[in-house]
Amino acid sequence: MLGLGLIGGSLMRAGQAAGREVFGYNRSIDAVKSATADGFDATEDLTAALKRAALSEALIVLAVPVPALPIMLEHIRDTAADCPLTDVVSVKGNVLQQVQEYGLLDKFVGGHPMAGTAHSGWTAGAADLFAGAPWVVSVDDHVDPDVWAQVMHLALDCRAVIVPARSDEHDAAAAAISHLPHLLAEALATTAGEVPLAFALAAGSFRDGTRVAATAPDLVRAMCEANAAELTVMLDRAMELLSQARSSLVEAQSVAELVDGGHAARVRYDNFPRPQIMTTTIGADGWREELAAQGRAGGVIRSALPVRGSRG
Amino acid sequence: MLGLGLIGGSLMRAGQAAGREVFGYNRSIDAVKSATADGFDATEDLTAALKRAALSEALIVLAVPVPALPIMLEHIRDTAADCPLTDVVSVKGNVLQQVQEYGLLDKFVGGHPMAGTAHSGWTAGAADLFAGAPWVVSVDDHVDPDVWAQVMHLALDCRAVIVPARSDEHDAAAAAISHLPHLLAEALATTAGEVPLAFALAAGSFRDGTRVAATAPDLVRAMCEANAAELTVMLDRAMELLSQARSSLVEAQSVAELVDGGHAARVRYDNFPRPQIMTTTIGADGWREELAAQGRAGGVIRSALPVRGSRG
Repeated sequence: MLGLGLIGGSLMRAGQAAGREVFGYNRSIDAVKSATADGFDATEDLTAALKRAALSEALIVLAVPVPALPIMLEHIRDTAADCPLTDVVSVKGNVLQQVQEYGLLDKFVGGHPMAGTAHSGWTAGAADLFAGAPWVVSVDDHVDPDVWAQVMHLALDCRAVIVPARSDEHDAAAAAISHLPHLLAEALATTAGEVPLAFALAAGSFRDGTRVAATAPDLVRAMCEANAAELTVMLDRAMELLSQARSSLVEAQSVAELVDGGHAARVRYDNFPRPQIMTTTIGADGWREELAAQGRAGGVIRSALPVRGSRG
Repeated sequence: MLGLGLIGGSLMRAGQAAGREVFGYNRSIDAVKSATADGFDATEDLTAALKRAALSEALIVLAVPVPALPIMLEHIRDTAADCPLTDVVSVKGNVLQQVQEYGLLDKFVGGHPMAGTAHSGWTAGAADLFAGAPWVVSVDDHVDPDVWAQVMHLALDCRAVIVPARSDEHDAAAAAISHLPHLLAEALATTAGEVPLAFALAAGSFRDGTRVAATAPDLVRAMCEANAAELTVMLDRAMELLSQARSSLVEAQSVAELVDGGHAARVRYDNFPRPQIMTTTIGADGWREELAAQGRAGGVIRSALPVRGSRG
């Protein structure tokens, strides 16, 4: 486990709780000390951690902030290039590109557990952070069936629900359901903050609508800015809808179109089916495309799929 | 109690639980039957209810949808013009204007309990709906101290926290913290609904950001459209902030300004003081301006203020 923040630290706890041997690295000694005090196997010596990973062919999990990726990938290339590799960073296209630049694509399968809290750091972590949460495992054209299966087993051990998806489709969807909501929450908090009496009256709809604005600005910036291209598309669409509603409100005293459409979408979301994916064999002809299509339709993996030619 | 929906029905329960004599009217017989079956004093005969109110000088509470206001005000003018009058409708400027048109301003003090759920109707109501919730009681230039005190006692009996505010300031604040969040939620739900895979990945930030989009479209339209002028101002400001963030994202790969500002506003909200208003005497010189200023600064009334010249 490279990085012992909220996600990496929770993953370490969840993996160990599932009976896995987990060892971790963190740059700052504080998290290492906390993890060690909590009974986990952690070090601030990156080379030692990677040598150990190479010896045991461990699955390496990148759980560091985006700016730390190049230095991690460089060390992995030099010390543990044959280890299977995954990540838990939110934006997938960017990670994929960097992994490719360091020549580590063959053993890489990207991942993104869609879980989090407004808090960060080792102490904010919990073994059950991923329980029931969607965890995207990427099915890009290059992915290796055996590495894919290892990442699948890790996510299932963490009691997550796996959504297979292409990295590009993941990033567009993440912009719509995670990064756009953050920017809308920031805009709402700012707007209301300028109106006398607003905070005095604020209740449920304001609290819900601005909850994610309490997230540390650095984390919000990191994920939004890393997904700029997709986020811009979503921002444009949201602003178009708001602008149309404004015109309709002024000219026809009606916000019917926006409200009816938004309500219908939310109802569709509430009733979105989550069929279990059961029939695909990992490594069989067209398995990647098949999983991507099923993920798009709401399909999830709740128990391990068979792997073609595997010993298991 | 005129109207036995979510708010009126909850108010009837809360008032009765506080030991008040409460009787109610509702247009549809279903709510009247439900209320009666639950042990409450309800009728679908408006004239009878108003005659009874006039005889007992009861405080009349308008808890009907906005479109029903004119017919209610006409009947009140004809049958119970001398009764103290308040309302629980969300937009205050509009109600104030209609009350004035029907010549009922002298005895009117507007109100707005900031409580609700995604559900509606008598059966959705609860005696504790207002417990701890802000309840705006208007301190417009015309308001009569004795009627004001009656509305204050009603809100306190419902265990609400009173925020004194002018109707115009209330409407601007409500646009910022209630109506704008609804439109942002609708735009977010619509935008995400158009992106393949989005619902498959949606988690906390999407669920929170679209929670109010589950509200019945008619209710959302009614409150937004009734507050069109103020809502347009807030929409423009929010779109301006989003548009600036878009430019900054594209040109400088940064959303720092929006994110830092939004986070700071949310933190200010989390730490917003709620000092108790204790020193104002209702009816004393400048009491309305004094209460409005204190409300603006976060001040709330948690126990009854004295009334000048009152017997109490």
